[in-house]
Amino acid sequence: MSSEKEYVQEITAQEDNFSRWYRETIIKAKLMDYAPVRGCIVFRPDGYELWERIQAGLDRRFKATGHRNAYFPLFIPESFLQKEKEHVEGFNPELPWVTEAGGEKLEERLAIRPTSETIIGYMYAQWIKSYRDLPVLINQWANVVRWEKRTLPFLRTSEFLWQEGHTAHATAEEAREETTKMLEVYRDFVESELAIPVICGEKTPTERFAGAVDTYSIEAMMKNGWALQAGTSHYLGQNFARAFDIKYLDNDNTLKYVYTTSWGASTRLIGALVMVHGDDRGLVLPPKVAPLQVAFIPVGPAKTRAQVLARLDPLTAELEDAGIRVKADTRDEYSPGWKFNEYEMRGVPLRLELGPRDVENNQVVAVRRDTGEKTPLSQSGLAEQVCHMLQEIQENMFIRAKKFQEEHSHQADNMEELAGILADSGGFVLAGWCGDEACEAAVKEQTKATSRNIPFQPPTHKETCLVCQKPAKHTVWFARAF
Amino acid sequence: MSSEKEYVQEITAQEDNFSRWYRETIIKAKLMDYAPVRGCIVFRPDGYELWERIQAGLDRRFKATGHRNAYFPLFIPESFLQKEKEHVEGFNPELPWVTEAGGEKLEERLAIRPTSETIIGYMYAQWIKSYRDLPVLINQWANVVRWEKRTLPFLRTSEFLWQEGHTAHATAEEAREETTKMLEVYRDFVESELAIPVICGEKTPTERFAGAVDTYSIEAMMKNGWALQAGTSHYLGQNFARAFDIKYLDNDNTLKYVYTTSWGASTRLIGALVMVHGDDRGLVLPPKVAPLQVAFIPVGPAKTRAQVLARLDPLTAELEDAGIRVKADTRDEYSPGWKFNEYEMRGVPLRLELGPRDVENNQVVAVRRDTGEKTPLSQSGLAEQVCHMLQEIQENMFIRAKKFQEEHSHQADNMEELAGILADSGGFVLAGWCGDEACEAAVKEQTKATSRNIPFQPPTHKETCLVCQKPAKHTVWFARAF
Repeated sequence: MSSEKEYVQEITAQEDNFSRWYRETIIKAKLMDYAPVRGCIVFRPDGYELWERIQAGLDRRFKATGHRNAYFPLFIPESFLQKEKEHVEGFNPELPWVTEAGGEKLEERLAIRPTSETIIGYMYAQWIKSYRDLPVLINQWANVVRWEKRTLPFLRTSEFLWQEGHTAHATAEEAREETTKMLEVYRDFVESELAIPVICGEKTPTERFAGAVDTYSIEAMMKNGWALQAGTSHYLGQNFARAFDIKYLDNDNTLKYVYTTSWGASTRLIGALVMVHGDDRGLVLPPKVAPLQVAFIPVGPAKTRAQVLARLDPLTAELEDAGIRVKADTRDEYSPGWKFNEYEMRGVPLRLELGPRDVENNQVVAVRRDTGEKTPLSQSGLAEQVCHMLQEIQENMFIRAKKFQEEHSHQADNMEELAGILADSGGFVLAGWCGDEACEAAVKEQTKATSRNIPFQPPTHKETCLVCQKPAKHTVWFARAF
Repeated sequence: MSSEKEYVQEITAQEDNFSRWYRETIIKAKLMDYAPVRGCIVFRPDGYELWERIQAGLDRRFKATGHRNAYFPLFIPESFLQKEKEHVEGFNPELPWVTEAGGEKLEERLAIRPTSETIIGYMYAQWIKSYRDLPVLINQWANVVRWEKRTLPFLRTSEFLWQEGHTAHATAEEAREETTKMLEVYRDFVESELAIPVICGEKTPTERFAGAVDTYSIEAMMKNGWALQAGTSHYLGQNFARAFDIKYLDNDNTLKYVYTTSWGASTRLIGALVMVHGDDRGLVLPPKVAPLQVAFIPVGPAKTRAQVLARLDPLTAELEDAGIRVKADTRDEYSPGWKFNEYEMRGVPLRLELGPRDVENNQVVAVRRDTGEKTPLSQSGLAEQVCHMLQEIQENMFIRAKKFQEEHSHQADNMEELAGILADSGGFVLAGWCGDEACEAAVKEQTKATSRNIPFQPPTHKETCLVCQKPAKHTVWFARAF
């Protein structure tokens, strides 16, 4: 495998500089490119197709749980944002403003939406009149803009793509149930299709969404041990209902405010895919969302090419017919070695090689991207074997990521232990917390780690706060985070 | 059918005021609502689902013709728009500008994209180096903004949703072939899935896209006889390649500019669906894109309800299993008559009624939305019969719209004839045109009709210009247009 070296030279090794490895990989794998607008990126076809598959997987689950899609305006009048105090404080610093349009100065500035609680709240107030109109279960697929100081492709960009669910309910209980149901939808999707294990839990008050009563998150561990918040679900109580006067006539004939929720996942999931599974040779994509699942490559001397292609073409067709996303790369201007590297860089889960000797032996050689393992497969019933192998890869990738997460999960009883772990192996650290914001701030200041969430199912309950050593109110995961 | 009257009173008749009928119908059918931002609308779930089905039908065709999706930034730096002279002149008056972001005044104003030729051209210049990189076949699904003076829901709104294809080719021939291929994709989709017959042709120079060499369109006839441009495809020649320096090294080792195309269809297709098929009772939706295909409604006295539902439930399940989008409306608080009106207003293609006598006779009564025709169907093999009927409705809707289009297509040899036809029956008028912009302008000024397109296959060739009576260069369709 002399060809491997080319890429080892081309991209930075993860352990040398993880952030540089990340930036180089997503460019070389052609997931994205930098755009000529501050903090914006272009989603190239392979990057966008990952998003399309993420969209499909989530959308199916949203619809199965009774939600429908709708679309609300990109522009939010300034006065709308002022209506929920915490909300405006949270988002104001990041807003871009349209001040002129159609050759005239606008009377009221329009913000480009950073999220749509306000304008959707306004519409819900028009639509919801009676208990018969509830619940309202709507999701929106959209672009949003947050003018961030520091940007990182997919993870934090000025403009990004996401979905935002916005629901309204008659009771607090029902709204709370929705909040946790959608968190579970995210967990299920991210674990079963992206092969990324996550920790479900509640955010501490300082990490809450601006305007929420409670925020829940799923947190994933990247290969450098840092955390990435992969989806959030917010119980908004009556905060937005009061701000936008969303009331309904209940069947007891009294007017009541609704309870609302919102929940979102974004193109940062693409970043998570890269940083959870990628290695020093590039992307490693889970078969369920990989744009290309199988790269089929003819090998051997040029004079045998015609003979090899005569077998390769019908086998490719057989795989296609079985619904496998396969591409036969029969280009002559590139060597097999170059192609191996290319599809490894792009994270294609499985490579199939077919040479003259394979033709004689009625076999193809399968090479797994996740393990590098080579396996000869019989040409008879190839599609079925490939399907099976793709499934194995999907499962193995989850198991491996889960094992990594467990191996990099620790516990700390005090700040020294926390700092030691973070300096040493890194990862997630479970610790007790008294509930005082000052203690949480001390952790961040001294270690740069932040509270990720208060897990629903902590592996153990910690008794004392890692900072002040008073009795712990919560057991919290701390980590450096993207 | 006493219940019909309720709606006749509720919405304006088409022939009394078509525009008012349109506005009332789309609100009452809950396709959209007005947003609290100038010229913007909210796509409610039924409206958005129409868009989702339009997206699916087009996207499938784009991919089948070798295109992939990507995503480019919402923001376009002012300097980019300046690079193509005609382009900036065409779009400048309609642009909204972001002048402040993240608490600071921007050094360069950012336009919200009205279309993306410029920013995509800039990226293509980075990506395209060699003839091996061509063709580039990319499509984008996105929101765009044009600050229009007069707005009309779906047809002309400040923000709208669309797709924009952008391709780059080595030769003019190949780019021209792409331009016509994509026009044909639009024709095929709009005719076969939206059941809307269209006329394919070339736009006159005054109606061209700003920056294009040639623009082609599909034009549909609304029920008031006006035209609606339902999709456009532009051959851009080397205009944008030169403006953005998109060059490739050809295999003869010389640097050459690429040839580009762009093509788009938007949420105005939803408006077309409404105005081609709707009637005085509301929407009439073609089964292929209808969010709901079948409304199943129990009828008869309350005391028989349990017995009816015992049959209705398994029959509904049978239809669902066959992939039919069916809803059983078993709500007690609404009368069957109210429900009939409701699903008629929403344009559901087929209503099924089941009463106690139908249970006895092993039948259901099917009522077609397009014709009002009532047909008893046997409960045995119901799904198959319903599928067949939906297909018939789809076909009939196209035939009917085609017939309407033909009946409202006329010819004129001079301005008097044109004016007479427009004042009388309205519709499309075929006429000769000398090619002089002054004559085209005279038509618009005197009759408000504009040239729709120069059809590829005119029913006949006209010899003289309808205005100046000199020899005609082109045979053109003229019509009032949305």
